[in-house]
Amino acid sequence: MPFRKIINDPVYGFITIDDALIYEIICHPYYQRLRRIHQMAMAHLVYPGAVHTRLHHSLGAYHLMRHALGELAGKGVEISAEEAQAAKIAILLHDIGHGPYSHALEQVLVHNMHHEEMSLHLIRALNTEFNGKLDMAIAVFTGVHPKKFLHQLISGQLDVDRMDYLSRDSFFSGVSEGVIGYDRILKMLTVHNGELMVEEKGIYSIEKFLVSRRLMYWQVYLHKTVLCAEQMLIRIIRRARVIGAEAPNPQLNRFLNQQGTANADMEELVPAFCSLDDGDVMSAIKVWCMHADKVLSTLCLGIVNRRLLKVVYAADPFPVTLLTEKREAIATRLGLPADDAAWLAFTGIAVSSTYNFEDEKIQILFKDRSVKDISQVDNALIHENMRDKVKKHYICFLKG
Amino acid sequence: MPFRKIINDPVYGFITIDDALIYEIICHPYYQRLRRIHQMAMAHLVYPGAVHTRLHHSLGAYHLMRHALGELAGKGVEISAEEAQAAKIAILLHDIGHGPYSHALEQVLVHNMHHEEMSLHLIRALNTEFNGKLDMAIAVFTGVHPKKFLHQLISGQLDVDRMDYLSRDSFFSGVSEGVIGYDRILKMLTVHNGELMVEEKGIYSIEKFLVSRRLMYWQVYLHKTVLCAEQMLIRIIRRARVIGAEAPNPQLNRFLNQQGTANADMEELVPAFCSLDDGDVMSAIKVWCMHADKVLSTLCLGIVNRRLLKVVYAADPFPVTLLTEKREAIATRLGLPADDAAWLAFTGIAVSSTYNFEDEKIQILFKDRSVKDISQVDNALIHENMRDKVKKHYICFLKG
Amino acid sequence: MPFRKIINDPVYGFITIDDALIYEIICHPYYQRLRRIHQMAMAHLVYPGAVHTRLHHSLGAYHLMRHALGELAGKGVEISAEEAQAAKIAILLHDIGHGPYSHALEQVLVHNMHHEEMSLHLIRALNTEFNGKLDMAIAVFTGVHPKKFLHQLISGQLDVDRMDYLSRDSFFSGVSEGVIGYDRILKMLTVHNGELMVEEKGIYSIEKFLVSRRLMYWQVYLHKTVLCAEQMLIRIIRRARVIGAEAPNPQLNRFLNQQGTANADMEELVPAFCSLDDGDVMSAIKVWCMHADKVLSTLCLGIVNRRLLKVVYAADPFPVTLLTEKREAIATRLGLPADDAAWLAFTGIAVSSTYNFEDEKIQILFKDRSVKDISQVDNALIHENMRDKVKKHYICFLKG
Amino acid sequence: MPFRKIINDPVYGFITIDDALIYEIICHPYYQRLRRIHQMAMAHLVYPGAVHTRLHHSLGAYHLMRHALGELAGKGVEISAEEAQAAKIAILLHDIGHGPYSHALEQVLVHNMHHEEMSLHLIRALNTEFNGKLDMAIAVFTGVHPKKFLHQLISGQLDVDRMDYLSRDSFFSGVSEGVIGYDRILKMLTVHNGELMVEEKGIYSIEKFLVSRRLMYWQVYLHKTVLCAEQMLIRIIRRARVIGAEAPNPQLNRFLNQQGTANADMEELVPAFCSLDDGDVMSAIKVWCMHADKVLSTLCLGIVNRRLLKVVYAADPFPVTLLTEKREAIATRLGLPADDAAWLAFTGIAVSSTYNFEDEKIQILFKDRSVKDISQVDNALIHENMRDKVKKHYICFLKG
Repeated sequence: MPFRKIINDPVYGFITIDDALIYEIICHPYYQRLRRIHQMAMAHLVYPGAVHTRLHHSLGAYHLMRHALGELAGKGVEISAEEAQAAKIAILLHDIGHGPYSHALEQVLVHNMHHEEMSLHLIRALNTEFNGKLDMAIAVFTGVHPKKFLHQLISGQLDVDRMDYLSRDSFFSGVSEGVIGYDRILKMLTVHNGELMVEEKGIYSIEKFLVSRRLMYWQVYLHKTVLCAEQMLIRIIRRARVIGAEAPNPQLNRFLNQQGTANADMEELVPAFCSLDDGDVMSAIKVWCMHADKVLSTLCLGIVNRRLLKVVYAADPFPVTLLTEKREAIATRLGLPADDAAWLAFTGIAVSSTYNFEDEKIQILFKDRSVKDISQVDNALIHENMRDKVKKHYICFLKG
Repeated sequence: MPFRKIINDPVYGFITIDDALIYEIICHPYYQRLRRIHQMAMAHLVYPGAVHTRLHHSLGAYHLMRHALGELAGKGVEISAEEAQAAKIAILLHDIGHGPYSHALEQVLVHNMHHEEMSLHLIRALNTEFNGKLDMAIAVFTGVHPKKFLHQLISGQLDVDRMDYLSRDSFFSGVSEGVIGYDRILKMLTVHNGELMVEEKGIYSIEKFLVSRRLMYWQVYLHKTVLCAEQMLIRIIRRARVIGAEAPNPQLNRFLNQQGTANADMEELVPAFCSLDDGDVMSAIKVWCMHADKVLSTLCLGIVNRRLLKVVYAADPFPVTLLTEKREAIATRLGLPADDAAWLAFTGIAVSSTYNFEDEKIQILFKDRSVKDISQVDNALIHENMRDKVKKHYICFLKG
Repeated sequence: MPFRKIINDPVYGFITIDDALIYEIICHPYYQRLRRIHQMAMAHLVYPGAVHTRLHHSLGAYHLMRHALGELAGKGVEISAEEAQAAKIAILLHDIGHGPYSHALEQVLVHNMHHEEMSLHLIRALNTEFNGKLDMAIAVFTGVHPKKFLHQLISGQLDVDRMDYLSRDSFFSGVSEGVIGYDRILKMLTVHNGELMVEEKGIYSIEKFLVSRRLMYWQVYLHKTVLCAEQMLIRIIRRARVIGAEAPNPQLNRFLNQQGTANADMEELVPAFCSLDDGDVMSAIKVWCMHADKVLSTLCLGIVNRRLLKVVYAADPFPVTLLTEKREAIATRLGLPADDAAWLAFTGIAVSSTYNFEDEKIQILFKDRSVKDISQVDNALIHENMRDKVKKHYICFLKG
Repeated sequence: MPFRKIINDPVYGFITIDDALIYEIICHPYYQRLRRIHQMAMAHLVYPGAVHTRLHHSLGAYHLMRHALGELAGKGVEISAEEAQAAKIAILLHDIGHGPYSHALEQVLVHNMHHEEMSLHLIRALNTEFNGKLDMAIAVFTGVHPKKFLHQLISGQLDVDRMDYLSRDSFFSGVSEGVIGYDRILKMLTVHNGELMVEEKGIYSIEKFLVSRRLMYWQVYLHKTVLCAEQMLIRIIRRARVIGAEAPNPQLNRFLNQQGTANADMEELVPAFCSLDDGDVMSAIKVWCMHADKVLSTLCLGIVNRRLLKVVYAADPFPVTLLTEKREAIATRLGLPADDAAWLAFTGIAVSSTYNFEDEKIQILFKDRSVKDISQVDNALIHENMRDKVKKHYICFLKG
């Protein structure tokens, strides 16, 4: 009997693993570590259901990839068994380089390193363990494989990564308006001139997908309370680093001390990185609640007990005087040096675009075989007016 | 114990009737007749699940009204028990004037009469039967009641009628992308200066609502096959009228013969109108499949056996020569007079707007109590470019 | 490109037709007729959403068959392409012999003929039209095909017919408790010794399936109001037959007059039968609302305006005197002969079994390859105590 | 405007908090701590979606309580505003005494103390902080409040606790077959003679509820892999205690050392207990992966990397010789003393009952005001044969 494992998924029903190598990868400790990394960092402070994990998301993206490849093959697109396996492995591992609290602490914990870069380091490490069986997956992941559409399914304006995270995040957060028609979009995918495209009759589904994404950004990912909690989290790590606060986990300490990772050899850094997860950061935060440094303890207590800074969004920048006022009040109230109050009152800009005009395109294939960008079709919802990114200014500060 | 009936509804779970008068209205034969009128006319030929009825839709709209009134009252908006009852009765009966195949045959079967006008005639007839207990419901329905927001809940850009039909039609058709967040929208409703408005944090839900509506129009209501079948239906009635074909039901015959209703007294016409439903039209169509008139029998056989005319959509008008060609070919093939072929090959325009800029507005109430139209908020998705209605040209013709 | 049509289904998402012959069968007028036959007869009088059609149900059962065959093939069960096609055609057509109001009027309209028998007549008629391409489908349908499990998938305690109707009827009626885990059951199916079985770990899903069925019977199919309406429907046909009332549709008249079909040749009867649908019966009922026969008009008005007889369920038989009383009161009130009142006051028994111990078995295949009936496994929920069918007595009578 | 907060919940849509005191309790650090305790301990190792928290479950149970009270009040049951608030607070806090990994480590971490007992200690501590405002909630929680049905809603065979955890656990695990009709059950609740009962027409919903529970026990809560992981977790704590392994968190150390809590004063123990969560245990497990004690490190590595012991279920007890064999093999393989191998190979019994005949009853109120237990109604599914609890024997052992 052929290899076959089934995993229950509330989003898709059942996820089928029918390839022994893929199952071995899933069983690897590096992959299992993703169980201990929240998909949505601090979003669960607003949406209590949003506690799902990076492991679940990458399994879900794998599931969509499996279906996308099936649909394309059904339309006559040539995909060999090896290519299909490579694409499935590449999507399964696309997020494996995420560290504790993923996006929220990206480039904070490991300086100047995007998670994609770290993912590649980890996939290479796994490839060594698996005797080169991940070669083609790496080629697909890095975009050097000749079948460009395979890479586009992993990383593009319409990849299965996005399709899964929008579906899954809206499902677990209970923001039902974020739901997209992933099954219909998958059925509308096609390949033309070697590139991933969408059939003409999928235009409205794509519009809906982009508007759902827009909604999810402002209603969930950049919800003011979520944003505030994640800004606090970043400042906790930075403050701990500045004042040399010690975490209970020695590996986390190493990453807190930037010298510890600056010139590290990747072969040696990868296992260290893979020993960390959200729990290690949260354990440190719980300890630091009683730290002598008032800035650190205030931020940590705020996260642990969900007593967050006050946060306000506005269309325009806040006057500098407002920030100065807030900081002075805090400094006085807590007996802090003026500079330290800046950790507890700060401003910033949240940015999101509904459609990225520069970056990559969503191409529509018409029945007459002509191709247009989704922003160029007749009566397009996605129009040039939307070229500019949406920006919102925010201020966070400790309440009196 | 207070009056209380529960009706299972796959869309909302349970619909509660807790008012004896409302239950009596539901039990009236005029209302029960709506069981025999499809909500979506011929859409079930493409979406086999879309066989739900006008009765179900109006019960659903009543359910949403009940919740909307509850939410508003919870926010301190004053609504008396009598006003609440009136608003609920008005929405329950808003579609009672629909005849066979509702929108598809509107103004075809009863010349020059919109269903809203007929609804008003019927509500007045019921008011007589119910000894004037529907007076305030009529005031709300016609918009003369001083609390304008009650009327806006029944008929406006954001009324519970639309919220129900979008939810219900997407549910039964299986076009899951049409789903709207009706529960969140209801929670975001508010009243300001006597008018219905949406709280600031509901902006993205409203955008999503408008985009879902846009999708439903082009993917379902104006789906080319649905449009074609409904155009055939209209032509069947018109052709029967022209050639004096007889329906098995004498009441239907009367409406086919325009003299029969031209100067009719409403008191006498209402019961006649209320005796008709989709079944009477379909029975006639089944009989006319064997009619001597080839135009009529061809159209009728097409509907009964789902062998529809071929239909094509295009951005630009079709050349007149194409239509002439099609007609000539049909005339030759069927041995028809040239004029008659025009019944089996015709062109037209389908129109829909995502947001009606002229008509009525969706007003957003900001925290600072300022009010803006949804098309005027920062970073609006609904923009001036969309002022023009979307038009698509179509041609339908009998295949060779 | 391979043949491929997609149909939206709110229950399963999308139904795929990837076989040109199957699509041709779907397009045939005999199959299209099923659009005009309610799946659940009069259940919509209680559950307004339950207006779905036999066409939708048989498409759904086809969809489940497609998946079941895929799962079994994935487990190494040998199924040829021809056998798969035959099984899919057989399930698609398993209900094609249903007439107006299907089960409710089964054996009433066409005397002494079960719908399965009529289905076989129709499939044979289609087989002639399709030049024998349905030969193997007929073998599967009648159970003479050597692969017994194919027939068991169509007709058994755990066939895809039941799986679809339970899923679909609970979905459309909104009785969410009737929902079964059809996807998990499909994944648990296996073939052993040529028979359809369920893997050990599917036991709880099967128990759940049987309990859902039990619930659907008593809460929906045999709901007292549904039962009453369907008993009224039966009596309408019988009364019309007795008094020789005429229907507007001549074909229906023929079936009302039993002489008309008694010795009919099947070749000639099949097209006549296929010309009928729910609409023809309802049209007749609407006409008979004004019939001179008070029994007939009373029953017809009751159905049209949903003013049904009063119905009561009880564990024990009703005393004969009660029935006599009711009949006498009705005879007096309506001025009817004593015998005629029996049409408007009657008793009966509703019967349903949770698990049919005699008939067919649900066999569980254990890991050690032993086989037990679901009622014989350890700690079985389905136990010998349940061998007896559940019976409920009912009385229906015209209210005073 | 009245107090009003809304929380998104994927299970119920929106949870409304409309009472300032209840909101304050939710904001208390003791309650917020429940965010860091998994509802289902190790079940997520099999069902990756099952990562929801005790906080989410108790919010959900609160939501159902709110609806249950509304339904009962709508039926004329007298419930004062104060009683309603008390019942809502009691259910909100019913699980507040759960410690790390809740049921899995219950009575392991804090010796001989059930979570209900600890909940009561915590509620009393909160009552002191809230100046006695929780007095009546305590009366309801402990069952001394005269309205017995309020306590039955919190703790009984049909309480809102069970309704929420079955709904929520099946939702997040994706075991859709576990879904119960909580909304219909709530509508069927009634109070008779001061006790909570179910209306006659709710019988099938209750049967379905009990069968869903049965399914959830064996398919999820006692799934062999989940059971094995939780048994490993228990042994990790016990082994750490025996060998005096140290956790990074000093508070956890205190609970590991039983002397630390044996004679503790509650006023002092409660805050210590409340400082702990799943993360502290998992941090310790991660550290102990490298512990010198092979038993401890083997168990810990198994949990962290999801390389669990092999587990087998059987209807009958395993022969003692099998266990001895396994232990000897492990002792040899790992070079362990014979006794220590018992930590890595052990047997046990998993027990669950579908309906607890002794304990508490589900009472059905018939239309004639008679009352019967659900196991005594006509044609009961829940029958005397099921009086015995279902027992399954298991063996877990380290694979070779």
